[in-house]
Amino acid sequence: MAESNRTVCYREHMPEQPPTKKGAATRQRILDAATAEFAERGIAGARVDRITAAAKTNKAQLYAYFGSKEGLFDAVVAASVTSTSESVPFDIDGVAEWAVRVYDEHLTRPELTRLIGWIRLEQRPTGRWFESDDITAKLEAMAAAQAAGRMRQGDPATLLTLVISMASAWSPTSGVYTASPDEPEIEHERRRALLRESVTRVLAP
Amino acid sequence: MAESNRTVCYREHMPEQPPTKKGAATRQRILDAATAEFAERGIAGARVDRITAAAKTNKAQLYAYFGSKEGLFDAVVAASVTSTSESVPFDIDGVAEWAVRVYDEHLTRPELTRLIGWIRLEQRPTGRWFESDDITAKLEAMAAAQAAGRMRQGDPATLLTLVISMASAWSPTSGVYTASPDEPEIEHERRRALLRESVTRVLAP
Repeated sequence: MAESNRTVCYREHMPEQPPTKKGAATRQRILDAATAEFAERGIAGARVDRITAAAKTNKAQLYAYFGSKEGLFDAVVAASVTSTSESVPFDIDGVAEWAVRVYDEHLTRPELTRLIGWIRLEQRPTGRWFESDDITAKLEAMAAAQAAGRMRQGDPATLLTLVISMASAWSPTSGVYTASPDEPEIEHERRRALLRESVTRVLAP
Repeated sequence: MAESNRTVCYREHMPEQPPTKKGAATRQRILDAATAEFAERGIAGARVDRITAAAKTNKAQLYAYFGSKEGLFDAVVAASVTSTSESVPFDIDGVAEWAVRVYDEHLTRPELTRLIGWIRLEQRPTGRWFESDDITAKLEAMAAAQAAGRMRQGDPATLLTLVISMASAWSPTSGVYTASPDEPEIEHERRRALLRESVTRVLAP
């Protein structure tokens, strides 16, 4: 599984936890404002001043919680990965439907895909862009499905990369066409139907 | 074909053409240096000073040929699209092989995909990112293949977007894993084989 080899870990900076409800709320406001700022402008282009203004806090608080601009970025990415994994849980018995839900996630929450786009362009031009236990669990489930003859053979990491790319054909970093919630529902339905059928074809034993 | 609706035109700025061989060579050096600079740093991050230094010319020459930084960027994108289309000509009778050649193009010439990535993040978050006659010709060829029963039915633009995304699974803007020429050839062969077989499955009537 060579595609698991070159990896970068995004971990949340762990300062003393906010001891109060108010502290936790401030920390969350900073994360929310930083997610919007980094997704919009990237790592170099983001401004801490704009984040503290939007979060109604100050730099001392921000650095106390996240250490640095880079630490804040890593925390934003980690929170966004966790949130997306929870929102679109992988289902080995319905990978085609999972891909359709990934399409919808791109449509309604473009932030994570844009964050990954910035990481690619600004930080990590090759290899994997992050490491998480989440992907290991997916690969193990795929290997089990292959062993049971329910999924085509081949390196699970390579196969999963292809399926995620199919689900990202109309994503916020699409090389052709990025879908938007403003489009008529019939357009989304057409793409979902093609995606569902195509992933099913690709994964057939 | 709703995916052809929202379009942006990238045209080369057309000043008086360089009247001399030397002028043409200078213009090409500027284009080459600008391609590297914009692919690396994006539109906001690119510096005209670095481009003129790398091209061994000056700002007056650059602006005479390209009008502005934005005009230069558009010329870089147009030249990169033309060069890629010529390097990887679309073949309606061998779309799976064409997808494999697109994989190789990403591997050896990452510039266009990175340029498109910057356009997505900095300029055009939704819809198509460019208009070209080239894509119209592809869509017409696909519609003809569908009419002849040699390709699955469905909107050709939607289908083409999916196939390009499959060919871009390991591209410089991959949301999972970006391939690199440093990897062992066996890795590339594994991906090419999966891609060839998967595009064939997806396009089967």
